[in-house]
Amino acid sequence: MQMNKKYKRNQRLIAITHQLMNKPNQLINLQDFASRFQCAKSSVSEDLAMVRMVFDEMQLGQLETLTGKTGGVIFRPQLSEEEIIAIQTQVKERLSEGKRILPGNYIFVNDLLQDPSVLNPIAQLIAAKYAEKEIDTILTIESKGIGLAAAVALYLNKPYVVVRRESTSGEGSTISINYTSGSTQTVKKMELSKSALKSHSRVLIVDDFLRNGGTLTGLLNLIEEFDSKAAGICVFAENKVKNRMNIPNYHALFETQLRYNNQLGHYQLEIEAGNFFN
Amino acid sequence: MQMNKKYKRNQRLIAITHQLMNKPNQLINLQDFASRFQCAKSSVSEDLAMVRMVFDEMQLGQLETLTGKTGGVIFRPQLSEEEIIAIQTQVKERLSEGKRILPGNYIFVNDLLQDPSVLNPIAQLIAAKYAEKEIDTILTIESKGIGLAAAVALYLNKPYVVVRRESTSGEGSTISINYTSGSTQTVKKMELSKSALKSHSRVLIVDDFLRNGGTLTGLLNLIEEFDSKAAGICVFAENKVKNRMNIPNYHALFETQLRYNNQLGHYQLEIEAGNFFN
Repeated sequence: MQMNKKYKRNQRLIAITHQLMNKPNQLINLQDFASRFQCAKSSVSEDLAMVRMVFDEMQLGQLETLTGKTGGVIFRPQLSEEEIIAIQTQVKERLSEGKRILPGNYIFVNDLLQDPSVLNPIAQLIAAKYAEKEIDTILTIESKGIGLAAAVALYLNKPYVVVRRESTSGEGSTISINYTSGSTQTVKKMELSKSALKSHSRVLIVDDFLRNGGTLTGLLNLIEEFDSKAAGICVFAENKVKNRMNIPNYHALFETQLRYNNQLGHYQLEIEAGNFFN
Repeated sequence: MQMNKKYKRNQRLIAITHQLMNKPNQLINLQDFASRFQCAKSSVSEDLAMVRMVFDEMQLGQLETLTGKTGGVIFRPQLSEEEIIAIQTQVKERLSEGKRILPGNYIFVNDLLQDPSVLNPIAQLIAAKYAEKEIDTILTIESKGIGLAAAVALYLNKPYVVVRRESTSGEGSTISINYTSGSTQTVKKMELSKSALKSHSRVLIVDDFLRNGGTLTGLLNLIEEFDSKAAGICVFAENKVKNRMNIPNYHALFETQLRYNNQLGHYQLEIEAGNFFN
């Protein structure tokens, strides 16, 4: 881009929309736009007012303005009501297809979170939910939640960290705890590199699935060991099993239920929108 | 959005740019835009011509047009030359900071790929490189490459799959192979769920680090077991060690070198742009 070229309003609107989309949940100074487009800050303000109007009307996201010298604009992506219904429908339909119930009554959801047509809107939904909370880091545990955590990190513009289930080389010193996993109550170990999480961090925990709560309880205990606290807990899906551990203030996008069908002689999976949408 | 509302050009340009950015590497039919904005397809074509001009001039990405009834437009994101230099500089600087050389001369790069200010441009760069290749699936091995693979999947609009290092519950039947890992030549096992990869898939392998090539060779062998082939191999960084296995047609964004500094009495890390940029 030539620095001395003037841009017309139409061109600025395209470039500004691109920039906002490329830097979600990030403060962009109005002067940056003004220098880039060789125009007055007042023109940029007018441009942004037009962008805001379209974004509001089409439910494409919020444009927050921070006034003052260090001020600027922050774009917070959101999904329209239409898109929310579409993604709910898509997930429900796809979870009704194929072999979803695995040995031990585990529910297979992996393929959905590895498909961008699901991952993209789900990550945007989660980012929109927590965008105005003070969050320093997104935290997940290997492996199935990592892709979702990374996508949420991109939209929230925050780093993510990964808790390991076993020591891996190349991580330096770690803090580890034991936790009970699954219906069999096996004791396992989880650990996080000491340098991965600063003390007094506000952490958003993201994972694929909540079953009996052992893993999430472990993650909450581990976060405490770092003198940090959970600012939120969000899972893609939950399956409310008996004797589940108490998990405070979590959001699940979908709720799955296994019901035994006497006529068919096997379990069937039922899927509903979760408490995330309440 | 009200379906009967007419949109002015300014408003359409904002909404079209948003839509293109939200659906990278995805065919969008011109009629979809026309119905959405209650305008003629010819107006949409004019809008897209304006978007294309700004995107070209500011190096924001390519707009490909496919003509015909099933035709439409595909947005292929790219980074500007300025942004490429900025991300190269940022990575080099950050790899020069902190404790990067770990026991066994492993190099710690994890924190970079978990930071959206690095992950976002790197994923876009990789997606831009392979956007016009025929790729069905992105494939990585747990755990450190997963976030990068997920981000590339979002930009390439393709699903990703994760090869496991050990059996996990809830994956159904798997195909596994043995491979030799690291300088110690330990024999390990990697496996992938049979249903995760269709036969005759064209696979883009994405990983964080290439050292002696054992893992990538294993992945190539595993893909063959699925009657599939690698359409590309891309790693964030490589460290050219002695006796490295031959890896065909890979791209590394960064090349790291450990050099022994006689005066300081320890190894120092040197970082250069990799063959990705040749």
